[in-house]
Amino acid sequence: MTHLSPNALGARAWNRLEALRQFTDEAGKITRLYLSPSHRQAVDATVLMMREAGCDHVHVDALGSVIGRYEGKGAGLPALLIGSHIDTVVDGGAYDGALGVIAGIGVVEALHEAGERLDFAVEILAFGDEENVRFASNLTSSRALAGTLDAAGLEAKDENGISIHRALLDFGCDPSEWASLKRDPSSVLGYVEMHIEQGPVLEAENLAVGVVTAINGASRWTLTVSGKAGHAGTVPMKLRHDALTAAAEMALAIERLGANDAHTVATVGRFQVEPGAVNVIPAKVRFTLDARSPDDAIRARMVEEIAAACKAIAARRGVELTIDRFFESKATPMAATFVTGLSDAVSRHQIAPRLLPSGAGHDAMAMAELCPAGMLFVRCKGGISHSPEEAMTAEDCDIAIEVLLDFVRSFRYRF
Amino acid sequence: MTHLSPNALGARAWNRLEALRQFTDEAGKITRLYLSPSHRQAVDATVLMMREAGCDHVHVDALGSVIGRYEGKGAGLPALLIGSHIDTVVDGGAYDGALGVIAGIGVVEALHEAGERLDFAVEILAFGDEENVRFASNLTSSRALAGTLDAAGLEAKDENGISIHRALLDFGCDPSEWASLKRDPSSVLGYVEMHIEQGPVLEAENLAVGVVTAINGASRWTLTVSGKAGHAGTVPMKLRHDALTAAAEMALAIERLGANDAHTVATVGRFQVEPGAVNVIPAKVRFTLDARSPDDAIRARMVEEIAAACKAIAARRGVELTIDRFFESKATPMAATFVTGLSDAVSRHQIAPRLLPSGAGHDAMAMAELCPAGMLFVRCKGGISHSPEEAMTAEDCDIAIEVLLDFVRSFRYRF
Repeated sequence: MTHLSPNALGARAWNRLEALRQFTDEAGKITRLYLSPSHRQAVDATVLMMREAGCDHVHVDALGSVIGRYEGKGAGLPALLIGSHIDTVVDGGAYDGALGVIAGIGVVEALHEAGERLDFAVEILAFGDEENVRFASNLTSSRALAGTLDAAGLEAKDENGISIHRALLDFGCDPSEWASLKRDPSSVLGYVEMHIEQGPVLEAENLAVGVVTAINGASRWTLTVSGKAGHAGTVPMKLRHDALTAAAEMALAIERLGANDAHTVATVGRFQVEPGAVNVIPAKVRFTLDARSPDDAIRARMVEEIAAACKAIAARRGVELTIDRFFESKATPMAATFVTGLSDAVSRHQIAPRLLPSGAGHDAMAMAELCPAGMLFVRCKGGISHSPEEAMTAEDCDIAIEVLLDFVRSFRYRF
Repeated sequence: MTHLSPNALGARAWNRLEALRQFTDEAGKITRLYLSPSHRQAVDATVLMMREAGCDHVHVDALGSVIGRYEGKGAGLPALLIGSHIDTVVDGGAYDGALGVIAGIGVVEALHEAGERLDFAVEILAFGDEENVRFASNLTSSRALAGTLDAAGLEAKDENGISIHRALLDFGCDPSEWASLKRDPSSVLGYVEMHIEQGPVLEAENLAVGVVTAINGASRWTLTVSGKAGHAGTVPMKLRHDALTAAAEMALAIERLGANDAHTVATVGRFQVEPGAVNVIPAKVRFTLDARSPDDAIRARMVEEIAAACKAIAARRGVELTIDRFFESKATPMAATFVTGLSDAVSRHQIAPRLLPSGAGHDAMAMAELCPAGMLFVRCKGGISHSPEEAMTAEDCDIAIEVLLDFVRSFRYRF
């Protein structure tokens, strides 16, 4: 599987990833939901890994995040944070999240083995609630550190009616301490997260790693097209108000307008037809738009062009269109210093620094509210994530951790 | 509701239609399935109506069809058949089928009241199994007369496992007599069926009636487009193989090619997307094609153009396409003598004879295998049928029966 020497950073990280993947709530799958028994096992294993790697202090915080600190040249220096999450989706993969935590452990281990102390501390963060699958929550563990969580966030319930608050007590945490998790901005220098790309760009361009410019903002709509049902055999084509062909034309307009900019995407993912019988002209189609861009102004323009195009199609075809704009999130630009610093480190490894946006959300979105943030993407197979098919290579893992270590060693800050 | 005199053919027919609509298997709806209790009630009522109208002989045949014969100038002359069906779909309307039977009754009643005997007999046929809803059957009652039914056709079962054969016994019929129902072609002069249009053409052109040129042939396919799933946020537009936008483009090609000829139609009625999540690029779409034409050669060309267009779209977009051609029926041209005779009768009522195909199937399809056949369409509201919304006016009903009576009186044949 790997041609790395057993002592390579990638080989050691690989073993840790293999150890973590064993912890699952469902046998035969990787399902590790926030505050579940398998999350508890993963927390305990992560604590041990951080200690083995040489962290000076390791603890589990009030929300179940594992935090390992490797002091700098003196105790109590401001810290560069390296983090990601150890929860997964239902039937997910072994790398989404876990890779970023294991990379941080690998970096500290390398510094520790070399006896290196930096001008700043390094902290490894293993968040627990990034996927937000068990509870109706949103980046609970990283938002607590950023100070953007509120008390109501702990009242989110799972499908059995158990709140995060209640589950934390059962997990052995003291959720009443949540507000104290907020970090003093003067104590943190920045946050860096390594993550599999979850997209096919690096694989298509034969690159092991890439540097994230921004986490995309997103607009999600439900569009409802109402036409007129009719007998598929008896209504002449020119007398039809077919909701399906109208919606099909809209889907193609969305595809076209989504491709106007190299970094925007626009997707019709759900598309439900009524009545949906072979011999009936469709009366109604409800479909979704998911439009994203690293630039909010470009996204705003794109979705207005989409709305205008869909309205024009509806008017021309004599069908009704309603648009429900049910979700909107702003883009999160990565700090220029992190984009530059990561790019320089990539270049030093003889890899062309590929800048790309992140289409998916990450803990870095929350942490960017606290401090400068950056992300390093690692090539994954077929762009697949949130699936047992999720895959990457130990070689890429090795390169990525070497790049991250180089970035950390080269990290400079001014107070 | 109606401005007709109570003695007008349309007014009398309207009362009979109102009487028949009461017979239903489901209260509050019109659901009259073949060989159900409400079908039995409708059969009994139809027998009485035919007798009242002046039929010389009325009987219920071995398959539950009600047949009323009005002799010509002598007993036993060959007959012109006027028929349709008295079964309905689930939650159907009051006119689809019933109108054609009631029209036949009105014609005989008018002849009888005038003391007119023609050079031929007139037979009214009230078939029971045209909608083919209860059993997995196909025009059982009319195909028996045409001689195209086989014994296996009576073994079709309903959802409770009851065969037509069994249900006929319970209905009071002797199904063993089915083969003797086949008519001697020398004993029948032709078959004429009046039916609501089930389409919007006559309404759009402000015409009470129209003359059917042919019952459309149909091709039905299931098309399956397999692309590649992906994260809606992370896969750039140019790296996608989106099954939905590919299928959308195919649906638009189908719409365009279906409109190449004024009498063809092509419909995508079912369209199912997998996985169908807002943030996932669709991996698979299964959709249906229903393509119809009164001309089999034109239909064959149309569907080959559709197949070629869809294959070209699939190839260009890098998705897979499979086509399952699961149903095919040939067109049934109406006899030229009937098209001409009905058109002449329409003209004599100061109505421009509008020739149009029938998009839906009818008992006339079966009867055309036995003898020359023709159909007269009557305007209905919004083209709607198979629904409680099904509607027509008593005035149109009156005009249509007057036209049919005129056609019958003017009917000439040569041996």
